[in-house]
Amino acid sequence: MNGFALDPRLAADTQPVGDLELSRVLLTDDARFPWLILVPRRADVRDLVDLGHADQHRLLDEIDRCARVLRKLDNPDKLNVAALGNVVAQLHVHVIARFTRDAAWPRPVWNVAPPKNYDPRDHDKLVATLRQKLTLPAD
Amino acid sequence: MNGFALDPRLAADTQPVGDLELSRVLLTDDARFPWLILVPRRADVRDLVDLGHADQHRLLDEIDRCARVLRKLDNPDKLNVAALGNVVAQLHVHVIARFTRDAAWPRPVWNVAPPKNYDPRDHDKLVATLRQKLTLPAD
Repeated sequence: MNGFALDPRLAADTQPVGDLELSRVLLTDDARFPWLILVPRRADVRDLVDLGHADQHRLLDEIDRCARVLRKLDNPDKLNVAALGNVVAQLHVHVIARFTRDAAWPRPVWNVAPPKNYDPRDHDKLVATLRQKLTLPAD
Repeated sequence: MNGFALDPRLAADTQPVGDLELSRVLLTDDARFPWLILVPRRADVRDLVDLGHADQHRLLDEIDRCARVLRKLDNPDKLNVAALGNVVAQLHVHVIARFTRDAAWPRPVWNVAPPKNYDPRDHDKLVATLRQKLTLPAD
């Protein structure tokens, strides 16, 4: 789609869940936090305001969809939604289920090292569940 | 508006800029970062997904409006947009102009203490400028 390429640092820390109409959905490989990342498949977009109006609203609907899936799956105490991009400039939106008992609470999740990678079997199962809940076709 | 009351912790750390159609716009009293906070004037809303669909889209348009004002005023290297709410649960959205030379870069701005409060005269001038750029009536 018009020159879109996923930033290699985002690719390295995540597994793809699937593509919604606008966004590629990624699962961060950190079992401490149920943590999705949405990346609009548009070339050369750094900030939310760089997206056109229709794409912004499409992205919001996809954020809402992902957040509802995490809320339903995990019943978190809070949802964090954030587009920061100080390290990876490509526009990407974090949607994270937070718990008062989690490893970073009440701080933000970034830079709370080290990540705890998923057991590969748990991971594959979670990706399959997420695909189903997001009504993406089975892989 | 239907039982809305600004969380006192948000009120304590900010000055009001004005009310857009949905959101109260606040300026965080930290001269290190041009930092607006939008609070939808709805009662009992914690997460983005708790807002109705029309309100979500209205909020997005107001985020876009505030982000464009900060971008034009300050020409930042990056914009950070985030709804976290781990400390103050009331839904509020941070819109922050970031610079590669700022006090937190490339980390997020939260918990990078201590804040550097504005000189009151600079502060009043900035609020007046923001009101004008957001096309809010003069105070």
